[in-house]
Amino acid sequence: MSVIATISTSVDGYVTGPGDGPGCGLGQGGERLHHWVMGGPWTYGSEHDPAGMAGPDKEFYDDLVANLGAGLCGRGMYDAAGAWGGTNPFDGPLFVLTHRTEDAPDPATGFVFVDDLATAMQLATAAAEGRDVSVGGGADLIRQALAGGYVDEIAMSIAPVVLGGGKHLFEGFTHDIDLEITRVYTSELATHVRYAVKRQ
Amino acid sequence: MSVIATISTSVDGYVTGPGDGPGCGLGQGGERLHHWVMGGPWTYGSEHDPAGMAGPDKEFYDDLVANLGAGLCGRGMYDAAGAWGGTNPFDGPLFVLTHRTEDAPDPATGFVFVDDLATAMQLATAAAEGRDVSVGGGADLIRQALAGGYVDEIAMSIAPVVLGGGKHLFEGFTHDIDLEITRVYTSELATHVRYAVKRQ
Repeated sequence: MSVIATISTSVDGYVTGPGDGPGCGLGQGGERLHHWVMGGPWTYGSEHDPAGMAGPDKEFYDDLVANLGAGLCGRGMYDAAGAWGGTNPFDGPLFVLTHRTEDAPDPATGFVFVDDLATAMQLATAAAEGRDVSVGGGADLIRQALAGGYVDEIAMSIAPVVLGGGKHLFEGFTHDIDLEITRVYTSELATHVRYAVKRQ
Repeated sequence: MSVIATISTSVDGYVTGPGDGPGCGLGQGGERLHHWVMGGPWTYGSEHDPAGMAGPDKEFYDDLVANLGAGLCGRGMYDAAGAWGGTNPFDGPLFVLTHRTEDAPDPATGFVFVDDLATAMQLATAAAEGRDVSVGGGADLIRQALAGGYVDEIAMSIAPVVLGGGKHLFEGFTHDIDLEITRVYTSELATHVRYAVKRQ
C-alpha cells in the first residue's frame, strides 16, 4: 500500500495557469497541462476533443491507477472540476478536504467531505483496504501531505509549457526531501516521473 | 546554430540549495543537483569522488556539448565555481555576464567579461562560428535570456531531490512559453529533458 501524490505541472512548477477556479478549470492556458490526458491540444468548450489518452501517457496512467483503492483531493480542485459532474469517476471513494463540510453531497456520489488531513488519510487508508491511496491536487493539499510525512511516492507529469503564473506546486514549501526515481514515461505531451520518497 | 539554456534543477525548481556562493558551490544540500555530473553521491572536500559521469547522463552531456562553440554564464556562477580554477574548461570562449568588468581575467584564460546580455550574445554567437551557444546559470541569466527571446532550446536536468529553498530557476518569471519535448534521457541520478522553444 502506497500513498501516491499525483499532479501535472508546467516546466516552471505551476499546477494551474493564472485565474483557475470554478468555470475556469485549470486557469488561463492551463489546459496545456492536460494535453497528455486528452491525447492532444484541447480547449474548454471545444466541440472537437482530441483522440484521448494514448501511448506512454496511457501506460503511465494505467500503471498509476491499477492498484488505487481511494483518493484525496482538495476542495478547490473539487469545485474547479465541477465535482466531475456530480459523481466520483475514480475507483474507490474520493475524500475531499474542506473546512466547509456543511454542503457535503450524498455519499452515493462517491465523494466524502472531511475537514482535516489526518482524518482524511485515515479514512482513505481504511477504505483502500490495502490498495494505494492517491493524493491529487490542489497544490496546497500535496504540500500538506508531503510536510506531514504521509506521502510514499510522487507521480509528476511535466507538461512542455512555461506558464509564468498560477498556483505553484511548491509555493512556500521548505522541507528537504530525497527522492528515488523509480520510473519515467516519455511522450510528446509530457514527461512522467515516478519518485519514491526516501528520506525527509 | 542553437542557443541552448542548460541547467540542473531540483524537483521543486531550485538551481542551488540555500546559501550558495564562493566557497559554498551549490549551497546547502545543493551538491545533490550534480550527482549525475559526478556519477553518484559526493560532497565538497571529499577525498573519494564517485566514478564520474556515465550511462544516460554522459550520453545527454556528450550530445549537448558535441556542437558547442561558445558559452555564457553569470558572474555569480563564475565566482561560485571559483572560476573553475582559473582556466575555462569548456570548448570555446565563456562569456561571463557581469557589471564588474574591472577585474576581468587575462583573455588567455578563455573567460571574457561582458556587462550586457545583448553584447554577450552577439560575441558568443560570432565566436561560435555557426556552432551552438550554451547559456548556463545562474538562474537570473537564464531568465533574462528566455525573456529576451534569445533561447532556442532548454536542456533541463531534474535531480531527484526537493530542496525546499535556494535560488529558483523561474523566480519572478512571468512569460508564457510553449515548448516541444525533443529528447529525454533517464538515469537513476536525473531526468534530462531537452525542449525546443516553440512560441513565446
